[in-house]
Amino acid sequence: MLPKDFLEALSQKHTKSNTFPSTSAVKELFTDIMLTLFPEQTQRHYGCLDELQEAFDQIELRLTRLLRSMQKHLDEDARILATNYIQKLPEIYRVLLTDVQATLLGDPAAQSEYEVIRAYPGFYAIAFYRLAHALYEMNVPMLPRILTEYAHSKTGIDIHPGADIDEYFMIDHGTGVVVGETTTIGKHVKLYQGVTLGALSVSKEMASLKRHPTIEDHVVIYSGATILGGETVVGAHSIIGGNVWLTRSVPPQTKIYHQEQVKILN
Amino acid sequence: MLPKDFLEALSQKHTKSNTFPSTSAVKELFTDIMLTLFPEQTQRHYGCLDELQEAFDQIELRLTRLLRSMQKHLDEDARILATNYIQKLPEIYRVLLTDVQATLLGDPAAQSEYEVIRAYPGFYAIAFYRLAHALYEMNVPMLPRILTEYAHSKTGIDIHPGADIDEYFMIDHGTGVVVGETTTIGKHVKLYQGVTLGALSVSKEMASLKRHPTIEDHVVIYSGATILGGETVVGAHSIIGGNVWLTRSVPPQTKIYHQEQVKILN
Amino acid sequence: MLPKDFLEALSQKHTKSNTFPSTSAVKELFTDIMLTLFPEQTQRHYGCLDELQEAFDQIELRLTRLLRSMQKHLDEDARILATNYIQKLPEIYRVLLTDVQATLLGDPAAQSEYEVIRAYPGFYAIAFYRLAHALYEMNVPMLPRILTEYAHSKTGIDIHPGADIDEYFMIDHGTGVVVGETTTIGKHVKLYQGVTLGALSVSKEMASLKRHPTIEDHVVIYSGATILGGETVVGAHSIIGGNVWLTRSVPPQTKIYHQEQVKILN
Amino acid sequence: MLPKDFLEALSQKHTKSNTFPSTSAVKELFTDIMLTLFPEQTQRHYGCLDELQEAFDQIELRLTRLLRSMQKHLDEDARILATNYIQKLPEIYRVLLTDVQATLLGDPAAQSEYEVIRAYPGFYAIAFYRLAHALYEMNVPMLPRILTEYAHSKTGIDIHPGADIDEYFMIDHGTGVVVGETTTIGKHVKLYQGVTLGALSVSKEMASLKRHPTIEDHVVIYSGATILGGETVVGAHSIIGGNVWLTRSVPPQTKIYHQEQVKILN
Amino acid sequence: MLPKDFLEALSQKHTKSNTFPSTSAVKELFTDIMLTLFPEQTQRHYGCLDELQEAFDQIELRLTRLLRSMQKHLDEDARILATNYIQKLPEIYRVLLTDVQATLLGDPAAQSEYEVIRAYPGFYAIAFYRLAHALYEMNVPMLPRILTEYAHSKTGIDIHPGADIDEYFMIDHGTGVVVGETTTIGKHVKLYQGVTLGALSVSKEMASLKRHPTIEDHVVIYSGATILGGETVVGAHSIIGGNVWLTRSVPPQTKIYHQEQVKILN
Amino acid sequence: MLPKDFLEALSQKHTKSNTFPSTSAVKELFTDIMLTLFPEQTQRHYGCLDELQEAFDQIELRLTRLLRSMQKHLDEDARILATNYIQKLPEIYRVLLTDVQATLLGDPAAQSEYEVIRAYPGFYAIAFYRLAHALYEMNVPMLPRILTEYAHSKTGIDIHPGADIDEYFMIDHGTGVVVGETTTIGKHVKLYQGVTLGALSVSKEMASLKRHPTIEDHVVIYSGATILGGETVVGAHSIIGGNVWLTRSVPPQTKIYHQEQVKILN
Repeated sequence: MLPKDFLEALSQKHTKSNTFPSTSAVKELFTDIMLTLFPEQTQRHYGCLDELQEAFDQIELRLTRLLRSMQKHLDEDARILATNYIQKLPEIYRVLLTDVQATLLGDPAAQSEYEVIRAYPGFYAIAFYRLAHALYEMNVPMLPRILTEYAHSKTGIDIHPGADIDEYFMIDHGTGVVVGETTTIGKHVKLYQGVTLGALSVSKEMASLKRHPTIEDHVVIYSGATILGGETVVGAHSIIGGNVWLTRSVPPQTKIYHQEQVKILN
Repeated sequence: MLPKDFLEALSQKHTKSNTFPSTSAVKELFTDIMLTLFPEQTQRHYGCLDELQEAFDQIELRLTRLLRSMQKHLDEDARILATNYIQKLPEIYRVLLTDVQATLLGDPAAQSEYEVIRAYPGFYAIAFYRLAHALYEMNVPMLPRILTEYAHSKTGIDIHPGADIDEYFMIDHGTGVVVGETTTIGKHVKLYQGVTLGALSVSKEMASLKRHPTIEDHVVIYSGATILGGETVVGAHSIIGGNVWLTRSVPPQTKIYHQEQVKILN
Repeated sequence: MLPKDFLEALSQKHTKSNTFPSTSAVKELFTDIMLTLFPEQTQRHYGCLDELQEAFDQIELRLTRLLRSMQKHLDEDARILATNYIQKLPEIYRVLLTDVQATLLGDPAAQSEYEVIRAYPGFYAIAFYRLAHALYEMNVPMLPRILTEYAHSKTGIDIHPGADIDEYFMIDHGTGVVVGETTTIGKHVKLYQGVTLGALSVSKEMASLKRHPTIEDHVVIYSGATILGGETVVGAHSIIGGNVWLTRSVPPQTKIYHQEQVKILN
Repeated sequence: MLPKDFLEALSQKHTKSNTFPSTSAVKELFTDIMLTLFPEQTQRHYGCLDELQEAFDQIELRLTRLLRSMQKHLDEDARILATNYIQKLPEIYRVLLTDVQATLLGDPAAQSEYEVIRAYPGFYAIAFYRLAHALYEMNVPMLPRILTEYAHSKTGIDIHPGADIDEYFMIDHGTGVVVGETTTIGKHVKLYQGVTLGALSVSKEMASLKRHPTIEDHVVIYSGATILGGETVVGAHSIIGGNVWLTRSVPPQTKIYHQEQVKILN
Repeated sequence: MLPKDFLEALSQKHTKSNTFPSTSAVKELFTDIMLTLFPEQTQRHYGCLDELQEAFDQIELRLTRLLRSMQKHLDEDARILATNYIQKLPEIYRVLLTDVQATLLGDPAAQSEYEVIRAYPGFYAIAFYRLAHALYEMNVPMLPRILTEYAHSKTGIDIHPGADIDEYFMIDHGTGVVVGETTTIGKHVKLYQGVTLGALSVSKEMASLKRHPTIEDHVVIYSGATILGGETVVGAHSIIGGNVWLTRSVPPQTKIYHQEQVKILN
Repeated sequence: MLPKDFLEALSQKHTKSNTFPSTSAVKELFTDIMLTLFPEQTQRHYGCLDELQEAFDQIELRLTRLLRSMQKHLDEDARILATNYIQKLPEIYRVLLTDVQATLLGDPAAQSEYEVIRAYPGFYAIAFYRLAHALYEMNVPMLPRILTEYAHSKTGIDIHPGADIDEYFMIDHGTGVVVGETTTIGKHVKLYQGVTLGALSVSKEMASLKRHPTIEDHVVIYSGATILGGETVVGAHSIIGGNVWLTRSVPPQTKIYHQEQVKILN
């Protein structure tokens, strides 16, 4: 027999009913949204406009039901939120196609849009981020985070749903990338594996401030670079070299490289 | 037809029966333990103390059967080990609640205990580590490693089940974290992504020695820092900056930062 | 109702039939190949040579059917390719056993071949790489990348199927490792977590050139090291220290360490 | 190798695409309709009117999509048919509750409505018949038959979806019951296992005529009785005994028993 | 939108929580009991006494939890009932082996005990009846009926869990067999397909009386025979011919045959 | 604790390894054979002759492996038997198409070949019988019976795999049909629900004799008729009426009807 106080403490948690949907229900719905937008990833296709519209109608209803189950955490009626969300999909789709384009142009190994959509973890993580961000903007709690953590688990790329990321975004390889909640990223930005866009300080009082950097258009940030702080701005067309550690702003067109100090014994 | 010597070599392995349980059986049981301890992660709740006690009784029996199938690798009877293990759950649970607390206080973005339990990979990896460590302490082979590798696969956080980690432990983002087998970590320690607590030398003869560092209470280690060696001690209340490479001890209250050398072209 | 032009654009993609197999079909087949070669990972064993040969015959046919469904992307008849692929399995198997051996000898914590095969993500990633590389050499498109990305997703280790890696290869911990498409790696090479073997430039015109480094025999590369460029050669028996950033060749027997510059405040 | 003419004949069938939905998709949707109408059979409940309405909205859309996939076999647009079908559910539900009532009153062993809904194959077969009949009336081909055959397979009760059956219908035990396409059954009719309401002649020319009997209100037909022919009318309040073979009409209030001729040797 | 009164009526049912376990949970547990008692039906075997005892311990706990979820319908504590039930399994098993024996001896086509256990629907239905009857005797509601209806659905054999059936019982083919709630069957009785042991009257007031016949030892009842009435006794060693309709008692050793009246036109 | 002698008796059965394949493996393979021969029942089609041939090659290998697992019960090598079996499929297919034709012509309600294949339990049971009979003829034990019992469970139609049934065979409705092991059925025979073609005596000594009737060409047997005995021959073009009980031969062209004796009270 286990101690009664342990069981009683646990029992209190068990008897509170869970007012958020299960992770698997969230994953399943948003994976289906992905597969409807990117049929490259599946064998199940829709043959005509009616079928496609009805597929989205069904997605809208499944989202309504998901949101309905957490209605008390929402600002508006579940159905209205779901309808609004679906209306955002064409724009999300348009932006995701720019992301595909960015990867295709930016990686010598990429051979086709099809390959980017099928096999690039960077694209996968960005897609889930964009789907999550739209929920985040509607003040839906928990769900955005569940979505980006799902993508994090599959790709090692951790983009907070609150980040603000413009079009033509690309992440190559991507394992270890961290993009913080209040990060702002412009157009045509490219990140490599292990890049951190993080906070300098993590005191709880700062929760409502901009704690993460701003990356302007056409910036490239190589693997392992770390850029920290809410007031740090990386000017447009800059290149941040691998392993660079940056905690202050740099003007546009900056090229900054990690100056290696090594000791050689041979 | 494949070469006969290939088939014969393979056949020898196939005819040896597998004396360890399948990975999926291990994952399934310990995931159920997680869901019983943290009903936040599931929709399946237990309504009364009897049900809860019986849920643990069933877990005990499932563990007995898992261990029974590998009895010949164990120091004690499967049933006794299983019973002992279940008796440890209340303490594991207590400590995990301190870990939740640490994350809630340590991450400005975290909004509730519920969110930490539901959506933080750091908590997930720590929880599997603590469940695995308790098996490791009972000299159960293979299983602890299977558990921590499962969490590693989901989170990118690789904590060896042999590490010794005290309460109020927190890992943020976490991808790329490595905590070696003989690491010792005090209370209120916080790690960020990409931190390695590793060995300096990896010669086989050292297998039984302490090869990994000691981190005292209230230490914070920022992203990408690497701390190596069994005699390296990071004193209490120290802060190890991002990307720092440390192979010797530092006294309490040390703040050590990576001094960036960069070349700027703009 | 969603905008008609959005639906029409999407509909065009949906009506093109998918001429590559589903990711789940690919994963399932190659996982079964893994489990047939390494029965340590499963409870399903084959009792006699006939059964084993027939298991491979069935794998050959399943591969034929997978390839048949993408015949128009192939240089040769699906059946011939599948037969050739199966004939390569004994050699792939032989090399993978050297990789197991390398890990067993190279990690003090590893206790048996069985443990390496069951619980080391490095081995898992290498095994999928070797299976994918054999397809890559037969000019089968998409599939090799799907396989290595699957392993990437599970392990955080991203090895391009085009890389050329000799026997006795070992990766420890592994999260964040990136090995580029034109990398060449000799025998007895050991990588730790976070190592990048990458390209210096990523312009599209370079797609057909050697863009990634050459690592000769018996080299060890510690965690977080980055080695870039198609003309960079790391000579045999060299040791590249953790966090080293290397963009030029080093002769054999070189030991190169990251010279830490730190600022200490205590 | 199989004969080429066999493969070619088969190939012709394989290349015709299937313009009816899969049996499993049909079963799944209508099982969900059942579970929404009769939550006694499931653990998944809907907490409020909104959720319930949205559950039906989703059912309507799933039905739309099922019908859309077979649009070319339909008289009307899939969406209109689906909407009309859902509008019929309240009436189908009302009638099914009368059937539950009839069983509860007519079987001494039945203890509650709950038990009838959970555990009576007769009720299950009638429910699927009523759901199928509403589709049949809308000239939807194949689906009604797939539904009643599914129920037949589970219960041994074979009711053609074309039969016309009024409220308070009850079947006890039911295995072997056959109710033909043009059968008419009044209110408060009760059938036992093995009852056939069939055709006398089965020539193809009769396909469009009434070939099966009419059973008026308050008739009881005991096990193994066979009633045949489109002009056969069993008058109201009649009782047809077990094993009776009837091919002509009987007036109301008739009680007809099988007169056993037995040979006894003892 | 569906009519509000319909939704409201339905909503009342949905908000009542279901206090009986799901059919699938019941089926799964008792199927596992079957497979533990008759490993002939499965590939999962237990290697030693400890494993076997622990398998039953786990079954006991799973039954406890099933019963716990319906505690308010039970006379005693779920755990006590479950323990008592498991204690009955050895006797149920002993009797089932006599049933196997009876089939093996009674069907010329049966070739081994193994075949009877693997492939005879009669044995399957009897086994589920015996497992259900033991619950019925403990006044557990609903579950016994769910079990026998499950077997009915698979075999077409409908044995009420309340029937009282002695050892060496055999049913051949079986489709259409009905055995009523208050039937009593002696040792060494053999039934063929389509046999009904039923009630003469079905008025609700008779619910608590013996409404179904008594069949004494060593009786054979051929296909399609119907025996009705609570006072009808078929004496030991009697043979009831196919299609016989019997509503009164016959003394021991009776042989009664259906005297066919046929009209021949040729 | 359960009694030791019970556990020991059971343990003996558990430690004997099961030398027949699991029922689910058998069902799965033969269901796939069905779906390959009758793509009407599935959405998975094969596009070209190569794919079709390879589908059969895979079926052949799966059958080889199934048979290999029970090699010690077979007269010949598993691979040879499997190859021979596949060679029989074109003829089985040809005959099954005659059965479809017979149903289409013989049931006024049948509207297309497609409907017969999709929704007629009679066709389903015949198809499984024909697939099982071909195994039976090769002296493969257990499997044929497992297949026909599977169809029995789904349709209520129990055809012994040993029966000898010629082409253009049709069963309508079918629940309760029993066709015994040594039955012989000619061309163009039609059975309705509840027909038994059985044995007169069931003594074990008769196991190797013809115990079941012979039905010549163009015979129709209506619902509930019973025909018994190994020497009973129903001459060609005869019609056996519903509920007829026949234990002796009738010449060709016979029409025999059950002469109902009824007692009417009205």
